[in-house]
Amino acid sequence: MSSTASSQPQKPTWDAIEAAHERIAPRIHRTPVLRSGTLDAMCGAELFFKCENLQKTGSFKIRGATNAIFSLSDEEASRGIVTHSSGNHAAAVSCAAAWRGIPAWIVMPKNAPAVKCRAVEAYGGKITFCEPRVSARNEAAARIQAETGAAMIHPYDDDSIIAGQATAAKELLEETGELHALLAPVSGGGLLSGSALSAKHIQPEIRVYGCEPAKADDAYRSIETGTLQSLESSDTIADGLRASLAPRTFAILQKQLAGIFLVSEEEIVYAMALIWERLKVVTEPSSAIALAPVLKPETIQLISRDRSRPGKLKIGIILSGGNVDLRSLPFR
Amino acid sequence: MSSTASSQPQKPTWDAIEAAHERIAPRIHRTPVLRSGTLDAMCGAELFFKCENLQKTGSFKIRGATNAIFSLSDEEASRGIVTHSSGNHAAAVSCAAAWRGIPAWIVMPKNAPAVKCRAVEAYGGKITFCEPRVSARNEAAARIQAETGAAMIHPYDDDSIIAGQATAAKELLEETGELHALLAPVSGGGLLSGSALSAKHIQPEIRVYGCEPAKADDAYRSIETGTLQSLESSDTIADGLRASLAPRTFAILQKQLAGIFLVSEEEIVYAMALIWERLKVVTEPSSAIALAPVLKPETIQLISRDRSRPGKLKIGIILSGGNVDLRSLPFR
Repeated sequence: MSSTASSQPQKPTWDAIEAAHERIAPRIHRTPVLRSGTLDAMCGAELFFKCENLQKTGSFKIRGATNAIFSLSDEEASRGIVTHSSGNHAAAVSCAAAWRGIPAWIVMPKNAPAVKCRAVEAYGGKITFCEPRVSARNEAAARIQAETGAAMIHPYDDDSIIAGQATAAKELLEETGELHALLAPVSGGGLLSGSALSAKHIQPEIRVYGCEPAKADDAYRSIETGTLQSLESSDTIADGLRASLAPRTFAILQKQLAGIFLVSEEEIVYAMALIWERLKVVTEPSSAIALAPVLKPETIQLISRDRSRPGKLKIGIILSGGNVDLRSLPFR
Repeated sequence: MSSTASSQPQKPTWDAIEAAHERIAPRIHRTPVLRSGTLDAMCGAELFFKCENLQKTGSFKIRGATNAIFSLSDEEASRGIVTHSSGNHAAAVSCAAAWRGIPAWIVMPKNAPAVKCRAVEAYGGKITFCEPRVSARNEAAARIQAETGAAMIHPYDDDSIIAGQATAAKELLEETGELHALLAPVSGGGLLSGSALSAKHIQPEIRVYGCEPAKADDAYRSIETGTLQSLESSDTIADGLRASLAPRTFAILQKQLAGIFLVSEEEIVYAMALIWERLKVVTEPSSAIALAPVLKPETIQLISRDRSRPGKLKIGIILSGGNVDLRSLPFR
């Protein structure tokens, strides 16, 4: 975070985010913002849940995928697209490619949830399974790209993807007005870096936090050490949060983020049950993680202490997705 | 349905429904209307889901309860209120009574779901358990009323309750514009009769249908025979649909309803899984039942044949509630 770096506007720019929003708005849902009096009382804050689990394809990923795919020239698009993903980006890319009428090749780890694989197939995506390691994903995608000439749509190390994901926080703040803090899950960092860019542009004093499984803590370690850390594999229940930051998302988060909260597996499941019981929306573990930190008094104290404006504490939470297998739920 | 009866405006009147809406709007959620491209494609119609499962207390029941309790004079209210309910009306009455600052005595069948009992207690309602029979409920409530002087808030045989429940369909049609048909669950008939009054007032040619478990088919038999039929008990998975119509709701439904669809237990669970997977909202079996009929081609054919206007078939579905025990779900 040198002074030279901080004087440069980061990419994607606000103009790119606004253009992305205009491009995708006719194709996606403007998802509702839900509230719960019980959860507010439990936390001692007003919580505003941006429900991207109610988004088309069941996650925010359709925002970035639609922006990226509809930003391609006709010639680029004609050769199709290729990507790798543990699930939600895969479904989103398959869906957006179908909207554009082009083929989509999808590399998925072989331990991806069956429900997410079925979604890809339902949208017409062609799946290639690989070992559940980041390196294996990249290799398989590069091979398909070389064979087909398809355009690579990286799940997060891509300005047009980040600009698309940034539109969820933009919509949230347009609806709620000023918030003291915004929490979102972090895996590769596309949603979190996009959310941070939007939120800090609209409201520079807002504190943006990432929420990460303690069992897949590469983003936390990257921010702490100032050096991009990798994560070769993880078995966290938050199956969507098993990727690592990329140079692009790391650079944005280093500059924009207030911090990262690490969350245990038990805390993820507890937050998930609360969201299902209280908000009545189906959220996957990777998504429910963003509620877990504010259930702890020390988080509320931290946000309260750091806030620049007085009044009742207002916190935005991005519920990123809702794709779960109903036949293997973690509730006991 | 004599000509004399049909020339009389039915109660509650449209004025009463509008007054109810004005009275309760500041206290309840204006719930979102959700869509699913996949469900539309499966049914061959455009479906509009009014999500009362996202309503305060987790069901539409807070609409009627709030209207009834805030319609009481200060003197009436001062002695508290008493009601009987298998769950959602109980929680709603407890919550609305707490808002007004008065005591609520609740008679519940001893087989009511634990999650619904806990909700009543959380809002401060005082529970008396009874045998799971309609007659036992009525006797226990009458006894408490005699002892305390509390005002009886019947769960559906009450104009102010029906007027409150009517506001969900009113909001739905205000948002969607013209629909060809509207489907809602039927138990005691408060939601269905209120929905029918609102829908037919706003759009007289709309077809309003009830959805009822085949295992608790008293409303179907009442409409078929033209005589109010009773249901002493039922073990349908749709625990909110185990009550019978009352004279007031029967009279409205006889005049306003296009028909009742009977739904099997298996069809209820299948519809419930589809709603959880596709709409990503938690719905109870009693609520999911309203999707089941339109998954059958013969229902779509029936509605298409009966419609008065051409164009893509548009169907409203009221998702009535989302209070389920996450630890005993029926998904296999």
